[in-house]
Amino acid sequence: MNGNVPDPSVRRLSAYLRQLENLSSKGVKNVSSRQLAEYMKVGQSQVRRDLTLFGQFGRPGLGYKVDELINQLRDILGTQKKWKVIIVGAGELCHALLSYAGFAERGFDLIAAFDVDPEKIGKKVGSGEVHHMNELEKVISENDIHIAVISVPGSQAQKVADRLVAAGIEGILNFAPADIEIPDNVHVNHVDITSHLEQISFQLSHEAPEV
Amino acid sequence: MNGNVPDPSVRRLSAYLRQLENLSSKGVKNVSSRQLAEYMKVGQSQVRRDLTLFGQFGRPGLGYKVDELINQLRDILGTQKKWKVIIVGAGELCHALLSYAGFAERGFDLIAAFDVDPEKIGKKVGSGEVHHMNELEKVISENDIHIAVISVPGSQAQKVADRLVAAGIEGILNFAPADIEIPDNVHVNHVDITSHLEQISFQLSHEAPEV
Repeated sequence: MNGNVPDPSVRRLSAYLRQLENLSSKGVKNVSSRQLAEYMKVGQSQVRRDLTLFGQFGRPGLGYKVDELINQLRDILGTQKKWKVIIVGAGELCHALLSYAGFAERGFDLIAAFDVDPEKIGKKVGSGEVHHMNELEKVISENDIHIAVISVPGSQAQKVADRLVAAGIEGILNFAPADIEIPDNVHVNHVDITSHLEQISFQLSHEAPEV
Repeated sequence: MNGNVPDPSVRRLSAYLRQLENLSSKGVKNVSSRQLAEYMKVGQSQVRRDLTLFGQFGRPGLGYKVDELINQLRDILGTQKKWKVIIVGAGELCHALLSYAGFAERGFDLIAAFDVDPEKIGKKVGSGEVHHMNELEKVISENDIHIAVISVPGSQAQKVADRLVAAGIEGILNFAPADIEIPDNVHVNHVDITSHLEQISFQLSHEAPEV
């Protein structure tokens, strides 16, 4: 059905879902594509185009049922499934991610973490424990893992990515402050916090002087 | 000098900087716009256009001096300055951000955190301590703070953002899993981890079947 959905459309699907969850929590039952477009600050035809990429939703003149569309979007985004995930680097970020509300809600289940620090190894984390890096390939293959999170220093990120790819990982969420190169058949999402920090400092550095 | 530099250009400046820092760490002294374009997988004219937005760099036929361009990009991005920052929500993410290499390196100095949990209040964090939320406006104004990080549950994010804006904050880094609405003169950068998780689950849900 999909194959070639552009990344920006997928990001907008996430944003529609967030908006709809918000409306649902306020008790709103129906929404038109015009209303969704207004909330999202995109064109109405853009909303229709994004949603029809995945089949026909909504009824002419009536719009969308909020809770129905939420379920459809969750199905499309694959977050109604369970995803077994590992994380490389059992530092603060690992704990932050586990305490992040969206992680478990989106079906992500952390089944193992990896580190080289002897003090961390064996500690409980998520629904598993911290293993030594030596066991990376073994745990991935024994547990049929497809998604990994990288949270190591930037200088280690590429080496870790290479091992993950060789072990069969298909999706990587990279929190390390470094770009990684991976083959085209592996998906990488870079949560580039450094870039966000630089954007803020740029914007405040180049403020028009107040008058 | 700038005023209206498009966001994607600013993001690319961050990416050029990362690439150049990487080259510098490998001892590379000079780079051409063609080489930079190849590393970045963008067109050569795009590289030139991005860099000339901020004045003339490089020498015809010789390219750019890596360390010189690094310094110029850091100046442009404003990360050679010191930025006093506060964070609302003194949870795991607060600690993860403090341990994140890029935070201090980009000149960010956490001078206070805010929470409502009595167990956290008074604890040392960054170069300050955790205060009760009641003191938010007072600490912001006494310390002339312009940048705030939001790391509270999604349901609290808008309320916190409203207070920050009213207290004079000009730049917000939002880690909460919720969109926030703020006036046009305040800059917000949303680190939308939920959207990244959804993109990965989408991509792996819609893999072409293996053959």
